[in-house]
Amino acid sequence: MNVLDALIRNLSRMPGIGAKSASRLAYFLLEADKEYMHSLSQQIASLQDKIKPCSVCGNYTEEELCSICRDSRRDHNLVCAVEHPQDVANIESTNEYNGLFHVLGGAISPLDGVGPGDLNIASLIHRVKAEGIDEVIIATNPTVEGDTTALYLVKLLGATGVKITRLASGLPVGGDLEYADRLTLARSIRGRTQFTL
Amino acid sequence: MNVLDALIRNLSRMPGIGAKSASRLAYFLLEADKEYMHSLSQQIASLQDKIKPCSVCGNYTEEELCSICRDSRRDHNLVCAVEHPQDVANIESTNEYNGLFHVLGGAISPLDGVGPGDLNIASLIHRVKAEGIDEVIIATNPTVEGDTTALYLVKLLGATGVKITRLASGLPVGGDLEYADRLTLARSIRGRTQFTL
Repeated sequence: MNVLDALIRNLSRMPGIGAKSASRLAYFLLEADKEYMHSLSQQIASLQDKIKPCSVCGNYTEEELCSICRDSRRDHNLVCAVEHPQDVANIESTNEYNGLFHVLGGAISPLDGVGPGDLNIASLIHRVKAEGIDEVIIATNPTVEGDTTALYLVKLLGATGVKITRLASGLPVGGDLEYADRLTLARSIRGRTQFTL
Repeated sequence: MNVLDALIRNLSRMPGIGAKSASRLAYFLLEADKEYMHSLSQQIASLQDKIKPCSVCGNYTEEELCSICRDSRRDHNLVCAVEHPQDVANIESTNEYNGLFHVLGGAISPLDGVGPGDLNIASLIHRVKAEGIDEVIIATNPTVEGDTTALYLVKLLGATGVKITRLASGLPVGGDLEYADRLTLARSIRGRTQFTL
């Protein structure tokens, strides 16, 4: 197999990239400028050596501590527990949150063989106890696995007396009641908020 | 900027990859196995050095001559002129064609500053004259640029006495008359074929 076909096969292993897209990307790379090709190949080669989990929160970083944990202007008494490092980036992009994070590394999912012991839960409990955290926002996905993980965390954290909250679940902004599924609609009714005038 | 953000920015320069997809790919690469990362980075680094245009037809190859030009079992009197190297791969995937190719390198497009002199047209005329070609199939895209290029080729090749054909244009297989645009439908009427019983 020549390097072009091998590259197409490798590209098509990436998420959301089918055979057609992989071939399109490969032909784009064939004609891309040398500098771009060099930096892309270097970045891929060094990525996993340079980027490591933050020793406190588990977010990806090039340093020992991630930029969020190092930032003294953030609220260090507020921790948001998320499933994956990319959730940190998503929440950061809202500019709505000014606390710290804790990356669990997934959600409890017995079917996939993921139990509480496989997640960074012990380190979260430790942080809450040792660092004087006031509030833990549980931002796991609103799925069966995410909800299970949230309930598990609530049970463990209950003993510490910390305030525990969960991201609001309901209709997405710009969404349409007509297309909302029953479960989402039911949650949005249960979690309705009062107008404050 | 850390290497992760730099990688996401580079990935989002690829065609069809937006900011969200680029970030998804980067996080996939962060957790991919070492062997995959190594081969992907090597392939990208060496791609443009290893893959060159075939000296006869312009198709991408690792050798001086591409595998199609080297294949003695193919019909060397039949040449299919295409715009881009990826068109060769597409036509090959049909298993319907057994001749050679000629990659023009694009189509005549005055608006983009591409004139006949920028395309591999002289080499096609030379091949037709020197290699005893019987038929040239013009497989440029059924667009204004592709059709213009086809007409230009017909004019030049007419003098050589070679048989010149054009890919059939009409309704796509599995398509629906209701959704066909006027031009396509008009072409499919003009180019209608007779049932042979």
